[in-house]
Amino acid sequence: MSEGLRERKKRETRLRISDIATGLFMMRGFDNVTVAEVARAADVSVNTVFNYFPAKEDLLFDRQDEVQELLGRVVRARRPGESAAEAVRRDFLDALDTGHYRYGLHEGSDVSTRMISASPALTARLREMNELREQALAKALTDETEADPDDLTPGLVAGQICATLHTLMSYAARRMLAGESAETIAPDLRRQTDLAFRLLESGVGDYCIRWEDITQAGGADTSRAIP
Amino acid sequence: MSEGLRERKKRETRLRISDIATGLFMMRGFDNVTVAEVARAADVSVNTVFNYFPAKEDLLFDRQDEVQELLGRVVRARRPGESAAEAVRRDFLDALDTGHYRYGLHEGSDVSTRMISASPALTARLREMNELREQALAKALTDETEADPDDLTPGLVAGQICATLHTLMSYAARRMLAGESAETIAPDLRRQTDLAFRLLESGVGDYCIRWEDITQAGGADTSRAIP
Repeated sequence: MSEGLRERKKRETRLRISDIATGLFMMRGFDNVTVAEVARAADVSVNTVFNYFPAKEDLLFDRQDEVQELLGRVVRARRPGESAAEAVRRDFLDALDTGHYRYGLHEGSDVSTRMISASPALTARLREMNELREQALAKALTDETEADPDDLTPGLVAGQICATLHTLMSYAARRMLAGESAETIAPDLRRQTDLAFRLLESGVGDYCIRWEDITQAGGADTSRAIP
Repeated sequence: MSEGLRERKKRETRLRISDIATGLFMMRGFDNVTVAEVARAADVSVNTVFNYFPAKEDLLFDRQDEVQELLGRVVRARRPGESAAEAVRRDFLDALDTGHYRYGLHEGSDVSTRMISASPALTARLREMNELREQALAKALTDETEADPDDLTPGLVAGQICATLHTLMSYAARRMLAGESAETIAPDLRRQTDLAFRLLESGVGDYCIRWEDITQAGGADTSRAIP
């Protein structure tokens, strides 16, 4: 069934409000624009804005449902022979190569990165979105491995995968905040992604072991103290 | 040099305000208590409260500096032969065994878990504290391995360790919110901790691999379709 006139108008209004709001936020900073100003600029009432967007942050994160479901979808659609981590790595690198927005590393993402970083409310919302994305991934892993509901493994693996992505994204964000574009960062980010997923896949069991004191405790190295 | 009278009075006032506030929050819920009410109950001015505690959340998370530095301190004090992950596991299990508050899993922590979970402001603050704790751990790992500042490995390992703890803590929180005490959960939490750290140490490289389609693609299993 095709979209009715009423539905189409609602969708268009929603998109128009979100576009106008995003423009205002980009120009003047998220915390410096009120919902009343968005309403005025979009020529609608404040109540209309709140009907479409329950919180001011929703005006900016209009695609948050899509972003939250992303990793779960990638894992469900993994290829024959692929593990969950491999599927996510492939999709992440693919987004980097094609400049797609789904991981927030597309052209112009330095502008939104700066805006989010400058606003405590947006930063808090981003953290919440990351948590919901992790939960959706854990759900997909539970389904795909037919894990027992009491089994913590899907939640643990989801946490590990999301931590890896989060560290990579924070790395990119730091460089964007220092003035680089998403495009300039891409080659280094690719290299760091390889490192990050190797670590994720093979574990951190031998990282930062305190060796020197074993040698000292065993006395094998005391000769250095007695010339 | 011993603490001066002025310093001691300040410390006592700070502790008194924080204790009274915590009591009010516990009784009536964080979002239902205003800073003005805390000031009235502690017999000080609202300005005095804000002098000691810049945000209302600070009244509750009075020990947040200590909690944020915890993992870095544990890694710096790791034993001979211990990796970073092993040191954190040992300290986490020790806190469980002794009922210490440092990971928020002591007697009575179900009450604060319910309070934090019921308040968006406190949940947001907890997420921020988790992020700062991860950064402090990354800093300690950088120092201890004498890693290059450009090396992302300390940040990645810190992310992995914190994700593991976070999944374990969320597991405990879910059960507390369902009505169990920290004490009842402890045995299961120990078991899940073993699972979680084994996964952290050995990696997730072979988790959730799509095998069935390889078999089908190879045709080895098509016999089942032709009786």
